[in-house]
Amino acid sequence: MNQDLIISIIEMLGTFAFAISGIRHAAAKHFDWFGGYVCGIAVAIGGGTIRDVMLSTTPFWMTTPIYIICTAVALLTVAFFERWMEPLKNAWFVFDTFGLALFTVAGIQKSLAFGQPFWVAIIMGCITGSAGGVIRDVLLNNEPVIFHKEIYAMACVLGGLVYWACITLNCPVELTAIVTFLVVCVCRLLAVRYHISLPILKSYEENNKQE
Amino acid sequence: MNQDLIISIIEMLGTFAFAISGIRHAAAKHFDWFGGYVCGIAVAIGGGTIRDVMLSTTPFWMTTPIYIICTAVALLTVAFFERWMEPLKNAWFVFDTFGLALFTVAGIQKSLAFGQPFWVAIIMGCITGSAGGVIRDVLLNNEPVIFHKEIYAMACVLGGLVYWACITLNCPVELTAIVTFLVVCVCRLLAVRYHISLPILKSYEENNKQE
Amino acid sequence: MNQDLIISIIEMLGTFAFAISGIRHAAAKHFDWFGGYVCGIAVAIGGGTIRDVMLSTTPFWMTTPIYIICTAVALLTVAFFERWMEPLKNAWFVFDTFGLALFTVAGIQKSLAFGQPFWVAIIMGCITGSAGGVIRDVLLNNEPVIFHKEIYAMACVLGGLVYWACITLNCPVELTAIVTFLVVCVCRLLAVRYHISLPILKSYEENNKQE
Repeated sequence: MNQDLIISIIEMLGTFAFAISGIRHAAAKHFDWFGGYVCGIAVAIGGGTIRDVMLSTTPFWMTTPIYIICTAVALLTVAFFERWMEPLKNAWFVFDTFGLALFTVAGIQKSLAFGQPFWVAIIMGCITGSAGGVIRDVLLNNEPVIFHKEIYAMACVLGGLVYWACITLNCPVELTAIVTFLVVCVCRLLAVRYHISLPILKSYEENNKQE
Repeated sequence: MNQDLIISIIEMLGTFAFAISGIRHAAAKHFDWFGGYVCGIAVAIGGGTIRDVMLSTTPFWMTTPIYIICTAVALLTVAFFERWMEPLKNAWFVFDTFGLALFTVAGIQKSLAFGQPFWVAIIMGCITGSAGGVIRDVLLNNEPVIFHKEIYAMACVLGGLVYWACITLNCPVELTAIVTFLVVCVCRLLAVRYHISLPILKSYEENNKQE
Repeated sequence: MNQDLIISIIEMLGTFAFAISGIRHAAAKHFDWFGGYVCGIAVAIGGGTIRDVMLSTTPFWMTTPIYIICTAVALLTVAFFERWMEPLKNAWFVFDTFGLALFTVAGIQKSLAFGQPFWVAIIMGCITGSAGGVIRDVLLNNEPVIFHKEIYAMACVLGGLVYWACITLNCPVELTAIVTFLVVCVCRLLAVRYHISLPILKSYEENNKQE
């Protein structure tokens, strides 16, 4: 019971942080309240919705209004308290990382529960954690930030590999979930702290300029 | 019978007006006939398709070719008669509003028929009426216009609340549908007539500049 | 057996060429390896995934990891050998055309196998062949190139009509598939060779400037 409560709290903190991210990006583009709400929803539930559609099941947010309400609270928070939010940016970053890690674990577990093989589950964990941000950037008419700047989705992939390794080594599911959660968090924190990023692809012209 | 005929006529007028909107936006970006057709299709059937995928049912346009044909007629209309269309813009606006209102009602009713709770049905009504325009703007590489300019989706939400109130008060379904239809139409017309729009979200910089 | 082998080889060449197209476009926008991989995946499996979701079946790529692996090979190829790829551009073009033609045929056959009518199957063939490129352009924040430049999707539509005509005339399925494959290839090659493109839509202003 206690454990379920902890998971619920992390899930709501993560959903809230994801929604905040969408709404603040929308505010930077001068969207109205409705546009901000849709961008918040997109980040908070977009990845899980794509996962559920591919798993041929009803999107998770249609089974309880909690995600819709949580995003509405996030909207009011940005609308009225935005001027006090910037100093809290480290808190948002930590919540966002918690959300990423929890959604990754949730995506993996749901896919396995639907009988999918591990490589599909890892992809689904990655989609659950990071596709929402891509939808946000598409709606905002930006190039998706996770495609050229941040280590974000790679933390999900690494977490997925750790999950697979743990299960293969017969770890209990709870421990596996906790270890995966921590790996995703640590990966992301280290990547941001030490400015670690993936190599950039070079186009033909750049490759030939070098020589 | 007569009633079904009226609904069919409104549906075709709405589909036609939605398709026209997509094709004219595509023409403004110098898309070719195929690009125009896809943008027209996106507006006309995009919202309903997202709804049906989330309801885990076959997209409505796959059950009858009428929507595809209606969009083809709209394409020919824009290709050959565009120069005479601008003076009719009030007619397009009225048809588009009819389409918005009818699609909202249809989206709500279909979701309820699939056993969804009311709050999901209201969201689905809103998606059915307004998601097509968002897909159009994404394909055209524009920022979605309904996120920062027009009251459009909010009319659907209001209509949905009215539908819920009527049903809760035991109104018969036909009357509820007609009242909802009119509420969506009137909301949109008033919003455009009196330049009513939602407040714009302010970014951190703007909030602090004010002081 | 021999025939299955040929189809598999064409399918892998096509998937590889589609993935290469996505990754090279990503490289031109300075995306990192992850962004390149996602764009490659989007082109390689995007169209078929949309088709499968609309047919209410599990996306094809979730049944075998071959498409994910093929895209990974394409990523390594672009990352390390991009400087030698430009001179081979005719080969990429031919493989890409093979992919387009094969995916079109596969999309039509799968839709018919799911009991869809012919007009839906033709649309699904077109989506299978060409929607991946549209997703790529949306992710890259470009206007979709097939909407204003190339004959691409029209080759799929023509192929679909030929497939329908052949089946109506009682041709055996194998022959029908081969003829359709060749029609799509020839259409695309002729369109590029002789710079054939669809007429551009004119906006209201342009129509009135002419006079």
